[in-house]
Amino acid sequence: MAEAIARKHSPATRNLAEAYRTTRQLTLDLLKPLSEADATLQSIEDASPAKWHLAHTTWFFETFLLRDHLPDYRLFDESWPFLFNSYYEAEGERILRGRRGMLSRPPVSEICEWRAHVDQAMEALLDDTACQDLIALGLAHEQQHQELLLTDIKHAFSMNPLGPAIWDRAPLAPVAPAGEMGWHEHPGGITVIGHQDDGFAFDNEGPAHRTLLEPFALADRLVTNAEWSAFIADGGYRNAALWLSDGWAWVTSEKIDRPLYWRGEEQFTHSGWQARHPDAPVTHISYFEADAYATWAGHRLPTEFEWEAIARSGDNMAHDVAGGNQMDCAISPLPRGGHSLFGDCWQFTRSAYLPYPRFIPAEGAVGEYNGKFMSGQVVLKGASCATVRGHSRASYRNFFYPTQRWQFTGLRLAKDI
Amino acid sequence: MAEAIARKHSPATRNLAEAYRTTRQLTLDLLKPLSEADATLQSIEDASPAKWHLAHTTWFFETFLLRDHLPDYRLFDESWPFLFNSYYEAEGERILRGRRGMLSRPPVSEICEWRAHVDQAMEALLDDTACQDLIALGLAHEQQHQELLLTDIKHAFSMNPLGPAIWDRAPLAPVAPAGEMGWHEHPGGITVIGHQDDGFAFDNEGPAHRTLLEPFALADRLVTNAEWSAFIADGGYRNAALWLSDGWAWVTSEKIDRPLYWRGEEQFTHSGWQARHPDAPVTHISYFEADAYATWAGHRLPTEFEWEAIARSGDNMAHDVAGGNQMDCAISPLPRGGHSLFGDCWQFTRSAYLPYPRFIPAEGAVGEYNGKFMSGQVVLKGASCATVRGHSRASYRNFFYPTQRWQFTGLRLAKDI
Amino acid sequence: MAEAIARKHSPATRNLAEAYRTTRQLTLDLLKPLSEADATLQSIEDASPAKWHLAHTTWFFETFLLRDHLPDYRLFDESWPFLFNSYYEAEGERILRGRRGMLSRPPVSEICEWRAHVDQAMEALLDDTACQDLIALGLAHEQQHQELLLTDIKHAFSMNPLGPAIWDRAPLAPVAPAGEMGWHEHPGGITVIGHQDDGFAFDNEGPAHRTLLEPFALADRLVTNAEWSAFIADGGYRNAALWLSDGWAWVTSEKIDRPLYWRGEEQFTHSGWQARHPDAPVTHISYFEADAYATWAGHRLPTEFEWEAIARSGDNMAHDVAGGNQMDCAISPLPRGGHSLFGDCWQFTRSAYLPYPRFIPAEGAVGEYNGKFMSGQVVLKGASCATVRGHSRASYRNFFYPTQRWQFTGLRLAKDI
Amino acid sequence: MAEAIARKHSPATRNLAEAYRTTRQLTLDLLKPLSEADATLQSIEDASPAKWHLAHTTWFFETFLLRDHLPDYRLFDESWPFLFNSYYEAEGERILRGRRGMLSRPPVSEICEWRAHVDQAMEALLDDTACQDLIALGLAHEQQHQELLLTDIKHAFSMNPLGPAIWDRAPLAPVAPAGEMGWHEHPGGITVIGHQDDGFAFDNEGPAHRTLLEPFALADRLVTNAEWSAFIADGGYRNAALWLSDGWAWVTSEKIDRPLYWRGEEQFTHSGWQARHPDAPVTHISYFEADAYATWAGHRLPTEFEWEAIARSGDNMAHDVAGGNQMDCAISPLPRGGHSLFGDCWQFTRSAYLPYPRFIPAEGAVGEYNGKFMSGQVVLKGASCATVRGHSRASYRNFFYPTQRWQFTGLRLAKDI
Repeated sequence: MAEAIARKHSPATRNLAEAYRTTRQLTLDLLKPLSEADATLQSIEDASPAKWHLAHTTWFFETFLLRDHLPDYRLFDESWPFLFNSYYEAEGERILRGRRGMLSRPPVSEICEWRAHVDQAMEALLDDTACQDLIALGLAHEQQHQELLLTDIKHAFSMNPLGPAIWDRAPLAPVAPAGEMGWHEHPGGITVIGHQDDGFAFDNEGPAHRTLLEPFALADRLVTNAEWSAFIADGGYRNAALWLSDGWAWVTSEKIDRPLYWRGEEQFTHSGWQARHPDAPVTHISYFEADAYATWAGHRLPTEFEWEAIARSGDNMAHDVAGGNQMDCAISPLPRGGHSLFGDCWQFTRSAYLPYPRFIPAEGAVGEYNGKFMSGQVVLKGASCATVRGHSRASYRNFFYPTQRWQFTGLRLAKDI
Repeated sequence: MAEAIARKHSPATRNLAEAYRTTRQLTLDLLKPLSEADATLQSIEDASPAKWHLAHTTWFFETFLLRDHLPDYRLFDESWPFLFNSYYEAEGERILRGRRGMLSRPPVSEICEWRAHVDQAMEALLDDTACQDLIALGLAHEQQHQELLLTDIKHAFSMNPLGPAIWDRAPLAPVAPAGEMGWHEHPGGITVIGHQDDGFAFDNEGPAHRTLLEPFALADRLVTNAEWSAFIADGGYRNAALWLSDGWAWVTSEKIDRPLYWRGEEQFTHSGWQARHPDAPVTHISYFEADAYATWAGHRLPTEFEWEAIARSGDNMAHDVAGGNQMDCAISPLPRGGHSLFGDCWQFTRSAYLPYPRFIPAEGAVGEYNGKFMSGQVVLKGASCATVRGHSRASYRNFFYPTQRWQFTGLRLAKDI
Repeated sequence: MAEAIARKHSPATRNLAEAYRTTRQLTLDLLKPLSEADATLQSIEDASPAKWHLAHTTWFFETFLLRDHLPDYRLFDESWPFLFNSYYEAEGERILRGRRGMLSRPPVSEICEWRAHVDQAMEALLDDTACQDLIALGLAHEQQHQELLLTDIKHAFSMNPLGPAIWDRAPLAPVAPAGEMGWHEHPGGITVIGHQDDGFAFDNEGPAHRTLLEPFALADRLVTNAEWSAFIADGGYRNAALWLSDGWAWVTSEKIDRPLYWRGEEQFTHSGWQARHPDAPVTHISYFEADAYATWAGHRLPTEFEWEAIARSGDNMAHDVAGGNQMDCAISPLPRGGHSLFGDCWQFTRSAYLPYPRFIPAEGAVGEYNGKFMSGQVVLKGASCATVRGHSRASYRNFFYPTQRWQFTGLRLAKDI
Repeated sequence: MAEAIARKHSPATRNLAEAYRTTRQLTLDLLKPLSEADATLQSIEDASPAKWHLAHTTWFFETFLLRDHLPDYRLFDESWPFLFNSYYEAEGERILRGRRGMLSRPPVSEICEWRAHVDQAMEALLDDTACQDLIALGLAHEQQHQELLLTDIKHAFSMNPLGPAIWDRAPLAPVAPAGEMGWHEHPGGITVIGHQDDGFAFDNEGPAHRTLLEPFALADRLVTNAEWSAFIADGGYRNAALWLSDGWAWVTSEKIDRPLYWRGEEQFTHSGWQARHPDAPVTHISYFEADAYATWAGHRLPTEFEWEAIARSGDNMAHDVAGGNQMDCAISPLPRGGHSLFGDCWQFTRSAYLPYPRFIPAEGAVGEYNGKFMSGQVVLKGASCATVRGHSRASYRNFFYPTQRWQFTGLRLAKDI
C-alpha cells in the first residue's frame, strides 16, 4: 500500500483540526469489534496486526509532529518507537515485519492511552501553520492504514476454520444487474497526468506532466463474479497460453485455481462466509490473474495514464465526491456496483510503479522511502469498498506486487480503438 | 514431548478423583497471568498457544472418555474437535500445526466454559473402574501439556523486544556452589530397564526388559552455566572437530553460538531478562550442543539405559518423591541445584528414541501415534523445573529432535570405567 | 535474454544465404575450445550448457523451417525436440530448465551431425522467399544464443576453483583513460520510438510509436571500474538509503558487496582471473546495483526512450555500423572503451519491460512467448562485447530481472536538464 | 556410505600388493564406458561425479601414504587436494559438495595421469609393514567409492529423458521363483557383536562387545517386487497409520508413491529402462518405506544385532565367501536372488547408527570423521549387487538417512518369537 509523503498543498486549518479528530476516532471505531487476541493476529508477512496499525499511526504523529515540533514533548514510552515504526530505516532499528504478531504486549488498552496522550498533545499543533502539511500527511497515512487494518483482519479471520464474523452483515442495497459492458472512449493525444490542484496528494502522484496517448477505450464497469466463473469454467487457470510466464509459474507452484476467499458458491467476508453475488465485481485477484483474464477476454488492462485520463473526463468522479459517512467503509466492505471508477475495488493497470518524470524524493526520514518501492510492483487506480470516503482521487497511485491478493483488487478492461 | 498411552496400571479410584480435580485446576492456574492475546500466541511451529493447550487437554477427556463412555453425552461444540486435536489422524482432519496461532476465536472464556462443562460431566465417570486407566492417561497427558504450556509461552514472550515477564520473580533459595563434579559408578552387567511397578506409565516405557551394560560412571551433577561459558570461551562453537557432522551443519547455517535465551550475562526467563547464575545448570541447549560439549570435556553422553540404572540405584530418586506443591513448577521455572536426577532439567542421552523389545503399539485412536515418533529423535531422562511434581519416574522417556532447544534441556556427563 | 519473433521486414535472399552459413559456422567456432564436459556444464538455472545452445538453435530451424515448410522432411531424432526446445509450451513438454546440465548424452559429436543434417536440408529453403522472414528470425535467435553461450560458459568456469581459461588472452588495444564524464543533451519533445526501417527486428521492438520526452541528458560514457570502487569505498553497499527496498533485501540476504566476478583487484574473464583495468567500464552488475550507484552519484538511470532518442541522434551509431569480424565477440569479451553506445556492455534503463502501444503477440508456436516475459523485468539497451557484430540496433530491447548479473551489464547515467 | 578407518588387523603384504593393483584397476575399468561428460555429472548433492571418485580415491593414497610416509614425495598438483578431499575438515578447505559437478577441468585424462603417478610411487610403500594398515584402509575406502560410483552414475543417467544405458544388458541367470517366506529362528541370549577376527574392518565395526537378544526370527529371503506391488495396490502409500510420523510427512511433501526408478512395469537400470521381475528383491526404497511395509506386513525390521547374530550362525556367510570375479559387481548390478544375506541389496535395520560401547574415534585427520555421522542415520547390513566381491562381512555397518534411496536398498523382515 502506498505510504508516501505530502507534497505542498494543505487544507485550511479549521478543516484540518476537524479531520484530525474524525480520522483518529475512526481508527478506534474500527477496533471495537475486535478482542485483544483478534487485534494481535498477523496471518501473513504482508499484513499487520490491528493493534500494530493502531500504534503505528500514533507513532507517526508522536515522531514527526510532537518530537520534532513540540518543545519539551517527552515520548510516552521510549521503547515503543522501535516496535511500531515500519519502513523508516533512518529512524533506527525496527522489529522484523514477520514478527509483529508476537506483540501481545503492550495491550490495546495501553496503546489507547498512548493515542489519548498524543491526541491531547497534538491540540497544540493543530493550529500551527508550519505543521499543516505534515498533519495532513499523517491523516492520509492513517486513512491508508484504516484500509489495511480492514484487509489484514479479514485475512487473519479467514485462517480460522470457524470462519468468524467481525460484524453481522448489514442489510445492503441489492446488487444491480451488471448488464452489457459498455466503453468510455478516448481520442488519445497529449494529456496532463498527475496531481494538479490544491488538495492533498502523496509525492508519488507528481510532478504533473504531459503524456501522449493513443486512442483507446476503457470499460464502463468492472468484471463480475459471473464473468470470472466463466473464465474458470473455460479452463482459464489451466491454459498456459493465457498467462505471463511468471504468472504461470506462480499459478503452478501455488496451485491457484480461483480468487482468494472463494469456496464453492461462497466468499469469505467481514461477516464470515457469504453467498457470492454473480453481478458483483470480482475481487481479491492478483495482477497475474487480471492479466490472464484480459487476454482470455480478448482485451487488455489499461495503463495508469489511460485510466486517469478517463477519470478526469466527464462525470466519472461523481461517486467519490458524493462520498458517504465515515463508517461506511468499515461496516460494509463488499463491492456492490461496479460502474463507478471509485469505491468498489482497486483496478489493476499494466503500468509498472515507477517515478514520474522529474520526481525527486523528499529529504529526511519522512520521505526516506518514497522512491524505495519503485521496482517490481504495478499501479492500481480507483479506490475500494474499504477505502475511507474522501481519500480517493484521479491521481492516486496504489501499488502491489503482481501476486498479492489480500486487498480488494479487481479489474476493468481496456482496448485499442 | 512424549504423548503416549497408559499401559495397564491404575491408581486407586479415590486418589484418581482427587488427582483429576487438582490437575485440571492447575492448568487454569497457569493461564491466570496471561491476557487473551498472550494465550493466543504461537511463536514457532513446535509450540502451541496456551489457549490451545487449555482446549486440547479438555478435548482429550471429551473425546476418549465422555464421547466413548458416557451414554447420551453431547459434544459441547461440534466444530471444536477439529481445532483442538493434535496428532490423532484417525480422529479426522486437524488444523495445520503451524496455524494454531490464528485461533483468536473461540475466546479463552468459552474454552473455560467447555472445561467446566466437561469437568462436570466427568464426575459421573471418575468412579467408573472401566475408565480409570484412560483417566489416568488423560491426567498424565494434561501434565505433559502443562510443561509445554510453560515452555511455549516462554518462547513466545522471548520474541517480544520488550521482554515481558509472566510473573514477578519469586525470591528463590540461593544457588549452592556447584563444586567439583563427582561420579556415580556402576559395575555393569545385566539390569532390568523399563516400567516395572504398579504406578502409571506411558506405553513407550515398556515392556520392561533386561539389558547388558558395560561398567560406566555418571556425573553426580549437571553441567553449569560457568562450565558452558568456558566451552564458549575456548571456541567450542567454532571448532568443527567437536561436532557431529549434522550438528556442525546446523551450527553453521543457523549461526548458533550460545544457548537459546542467552544475551550477554543474562538469560530470558518467565520473569523476563535476568542475570545468569554461574553455578546453575546450563539449559536450553540442543542435543548437538550437548554432544559437542561432552566431546570437548573429554567425556560422553550416557545411554538412556545407563541413566536409568543409576536412577534405580541408591537414593537417587529422593527428590521426586519429596516433590513440592503443585504450583512450584509454575512460579519458579528455573533450574536451581543440579545434583538431583530430577527436577532441574531434562538430560540428553545418546540413545535414539526407538521401541523397546516386544513393544506393540496399542490399538485404536488413543494409541494411534505411539510408535510414530520413533525416528530421528533422542531420548531425554529426568524431569525439569517445569515438570509437574509427581510426574517423574526413572522409566520416563522424553524425546526431541537433535536441534530443538525450547524445553529446559541440559546435560549430565558419563564416562567408561 | 530477449527471444522474440520477426515482424515483417526481410533481407535480400542472397545476403540471407550468406548470413546463414556465417552464423551457423560461428556457433561451431565458439564450441571449439570446449571439452565434452565443458559443453555439458550448467552452473545456474538461468544458464544453459553450451551443448544445449548448439542443439536448441538447430532445433529452431528443424522445427519451424524444415518440419513446417520442407515436404517429406523427417526429424533427425524424434526424441530430441523434447530435450532442446525452451519456452515453447505449445510445442509440447520440455525438459525442466534446471536439468539441462544432466544431458551428457547425446554427445556433442551427434549434435554436430544433426547440425550438418539440418544445414544441408536448409539449402533447399534458403532461396524460398516464403521462408525468408523465419530464417532471418532463426539467425537472430542463434545470434542471441551465441551471446548466451559466452556468458553461460563464463559463469560455469567461474565455479571451478582452478579458474580455468577458455582461451589465452589476446593482446588487446590499451584501454583509453576514461576522462571526465560529458553529456549528450536532448531538448525533449515528441520523438518516434521503436523499429522503423526495413531491417530485421524482433516483435517487441514495435510498433513504432510517438512518445513525449522532457529535456534530459545522457552520459557520454559508461561508469568505470574505478568509479565503482569509489562507490564501494564510500560504503555504497552498506547504506540502505541508496537502495530500492527490494534491492536492499537482496543485498542483505545474498550478502552482495561487489560486482559478480570481482575478487580483490581481479575479475574473472574468459581468460581466467585477470587484473581489472580502472578505466574499463564496470560490468556484471544488477539493476539494483545500477540504481543504487546512480542515486549515490546524484543522477539517475535513463528511460529506454531517452536512451533510444540519443542513439538516433548524431553519429552515436557509428560503432555498430563499423562492426568487426565475426569472431571479435568470442575471442575478446572484455569491455574496453565505454564511449560508444554499443559494444561494451548492456546498459540498464529504469523502464520496465512492457508492451509498446498496440503491440499484438504473433499467432502460433513461434510467437507463443512474445508477451510472456513482460512482467518483473527491466529493459537494457545497447550491446555488449559478447554481442555478435551486426546484431545491434537502436530499437533493440534486451531484458532481465533486477537481480541478474551474469550478462555483461553496466550503466550509463542520465539526468534532468 | 560408511567411510571409516582401519582398526588394527592387516592382511599379509604379498596379498596386499596384489589387492592394490586389482582394486586400482577396477576403478579404471568402471570408468571405461563413460564419456568425459558422463564422468562429470552430479545429479544430486548426495552423489558425486565418477571423475571425482576417480580422483578422491587417488587423493587418499597421495595424502595419507605418499605425503606422510614417502620421503621427498612431491604432490602431483598443489591445487588438487582442495578439489578432491571430502569430509576431512582437518585437511583444509574443500570444495562445496554440491559443486562437484562443476569440475569439467581437470579432464579425466589428467586424473588418470595422476593415478599412474601415484600408483608408481606407491610401489615403494607396498612392502613397508608400517604402511600396511593404511593401505588396507585405502583399498577398502576405494571399494566403497566403487559402489558409490555405480549408484551415483545410475542416478545421473536416470535424469536424462533418453534413459541411456551404460552397458548392454548381460545375459543373466534367470530369477528363481521367490517362494514362501521362511524364517531363521534365534533363541536369544547373550551374543558377541562386532568385528572379531584378523581381517580388515572399519573402526565403527568395533569394539566387539556382548549384547543381549530376545528370541526372534529373521526372514530367509528379501521382500520382492511382487510383494511391494501388493503393498502399493493395498494403498500402502496413502495410509497414514502405517507410517512413522516423519515418514508420512516425507511421503506427503515429496509425493512419493513407489520406489525410486519404478515407471509402470519397468525400472531404470545401468542398462536403461528394463522390465521388472516380480520375484526379484525390491530395491531403491527408503527406511521410511521399509518400515511402513513391515508394519503393513504385520512384522518389523530387525535390529542390527539380530541381523548379525543370524549372519554369524549356520552357513549364512556362504555367498560372500564364494564371491565372484571383480567385474561382476560392475556389469550386472541387479539384485537376482534374495536368499543370501549378502550380495543382492543392503537391508535396513531399525537400529540407529550409534557408537558401540567403548568406541573411541581415532586421532588425526584420517580418523577425524569417524564419529561424525553418528546421528540421524540408520544401520544397513549385508551387501548389494554393486558391492565389490570380498568387501562384505557380518560386522559391516552401512548407514544412510531415512529418506535416501539411491543405493541398492531393500528389506528383510523380522518378528518376535
